[in-house]
Amino acid sequence: MRIAIDAMGGDHAPEEIVKGAVLAATKDASLELTLVGDQSKIEPHLGEVRPANIRIIHTEEFITADDEPVRAIRRKKQSSLVLTAQEVKEGRADACISAGNTGALMTAGLMIVGRIKGIERPALSPTLPTVDGKGFVLLDVGANIDAKANHLLQYGVMGSIYAEKVRGIDKPRVGLLNVGTEDGKGNDLTKKAFELLGKAPINFVGNVEGRDFLSGDYDVVVTDGFSGNIALKTTEGTAMMFFSMIKKAFLKNMKTKLAAGMMKPELKELKASTEYAEYGGAALFGLAAPVVKAHGSSNARAIQVAIQQTKQMAENNVTKVIEETIQGMKKDEEEA
Amino acid sequence: MRIAIDAMGGDHAPEEIVKGAVLAATKDASLELTLVGDQSKIEPHLGEVRPANIRIIHTEEFITADDEPVRAIRRKKQSSLVLTAQEVKEGRADACISAGNTGALMTAGLMIVGRIKGIERPALSPTLPTVDGKGFVLLDVGANIDAKANHLLQYGVMGSIYAEKVRGIDKPRVGLLNVGTEDGKGNDLTKKAFELLGKAPINFVGNVEGRDFLSGDYDVVVTDGFSGNIALKTTEGTAMMFFSMIKKAFLKNMKTKLAAGMMKPELKELKASTEYAEYGGAALFGLAAPVVKAHGSSNARAIQVAIQQTKQMAENNVTKVIEETIQGMKKDEEEA
Repeated sequence: MRIAIDAMGGDHAPEEIVKGAVLAATKDASLELTLVGDQSKIEPHLGEVRPANIRIIHTEEFITADDEPVRAIRRKKQSSLVLTAQEVKEGRADACISAGNTGALMTAGLMIVGRIKGIERPALSPTLPTVDGKGFVLLDVGANIDAKANHLLQYGVMGSIYAEKVRGIDKPRVGLLNVGTEDGKGNDLTKKAFELLGKAPINFVGNVEGRDFLSGDYDVVVTDGFSGNIALKTTEGTAMMFFSMIKKAFLKNMKTKLAAGMMKPELKELKASTEYAEYGGAALFGLAAPVVKAHGSSNARAIQVAIQQTKQMAENNVTKVIEETIQGMKKDEEEA
Repeated sequence: MRIAIDAMGGDHAPEEIVKGAVLAATKDASLELTLVGDQSKIEPHLGEVRPANIRIIHTEEFITADDEPVRAIRRKKQSSLVLTAQEVKEGRADACISAGNTGALMTAGLMIVGRIKGIERPALSPTLPTVDGKGFVLLDVGANIDAKANHLLQYGVMGSIYAEKVRGIDKPRVGLLNVGTEDGKGNDLTKKAFELLGKAPINFVGNVEGRDFLSGDYDVVVTDGFSGNIALKTTEGTAMMFFSMIKKAFLKNMKTKLAAGMMKPELKELKASTEYAEYGGAALFGLAAPVVKAHGSSNARAIQVAIQQTKQMAENNVTKVIEETIQGMKKDEEEA
């Protein structure tokens, strides 16, 4: 499986990106990884013996977190991100990954890799932790800010296929993020989307509230990019607030510090179970090949997990199954 | 200050509602409280000596959590909630409170108490905890599911007046919940609302992300009812997940249980600082008199705090200041 990786994108690039690639390539000989970026900055992190299944494409241009996405993709033709996407477009890679500028990756996905025929809008789809540690896919979290009901229908189908093919879940339970659980709740958009999802070839289980989507009762939760972005960031913000409050409580005095010491393994476990690194990156569903956005603050472990996840997407033909399913739905609709 | 209270609404009604009223009435002799509900179920909780500043309006009908709001308000004419709202409408109370069916209270607010002239949509406005323990007002969280930019403008003005008059904050910092902090971010609605809020007579500080609204950097955060509901419930859901995970970690073995014992005061403090009870109920801004929705699971303490909050809204003429400000803005607009 050939995966192109933007070595220059992310808060800890290129070091952690390169180290993550080395971890993945060493562990899995079937991978053929292409690191795109500044060779002189990549090489020091490849280890003493560079794995034979890693090659480098050298470029000195890169896109920063502050670059305006569309302009950056249009103008920085030699940037590591653009060249990474072109590896996919020109058939030299099966999939690609970046931990850099999210908007720029989405733009590169749309403009260079291209959409699946029949998909109106791609969706940015991270996997979030749940109480039971299994996680669920939330989509869209911001690829498409002004969504229509038909987009939400397609998100449901794409999320369900991903949950089944990559996460190995039988009949994934698909919920619609809404302001109440009863049928008929919501705004114009969710009311229409509810109707459409109910008729789709997926296991649609109805409305889900923000209070319950971390419960483990859902494998896929569908929402528009605006609300999804709010929900994702609110989850992160609340988690951050809790960790900071707990830390403060544990550091309060000698007694609490002692208690913290006694709880060390459990606190570590708690932190790990909510760690984004273990859940992989956010896939951009609806593009003609797997494109994955790794978390901006990815360490080597997060990159390794994202590479494995991307490989599974490619191996299980997620893109092709999405395309066939969407075509089948169109055909059914025309015949009906 | 005369406040009417629906004694039959809420998970722990009437007991905790009545006990909360007794706490408030005993502590503050300037209150004149009217408890509306089943006299035989209210009286046992009034204590040995009923405070002289509590009276009862007897009724046996009440609205349940499952009742469809509009139908319930129309048909259950003798319900405790309808009679509570009528006390305000007919001038026998200055404000009212219910911990019952949120939709029914909003409907009673609109249909019985009525809107402030010039306010297009009332907003349900809870105060959420922040890292620094000061809290902020989030509005709207679901009174108005399909909001327009002008509604968000009015939310900003109402939230700012409340934060100043009731929470005692000088020049409250008003943020707009959005998918990014830069100007020009967002969907059609937030882009338009950003423009309007920038020209309003408030201290508008720009866009705020779900990641940051619990930071304590904002006193008021404005959003449409759909996104606000998602944000509020996501915060609650994430907090619940954390508490359940922490509890599990502390109960794991003898050592962790011992640590939990050592941390008891700090854990109690942590829990208290995130407790909704201390932040009061969710005010329904934009109605012709203060109407406050206490949390459904309110205990006596939460009711007591909500009564004090409602009193402050009435005492500080929040309703009148909102009306004058909105009229002033209309006039400025017409003259411009």
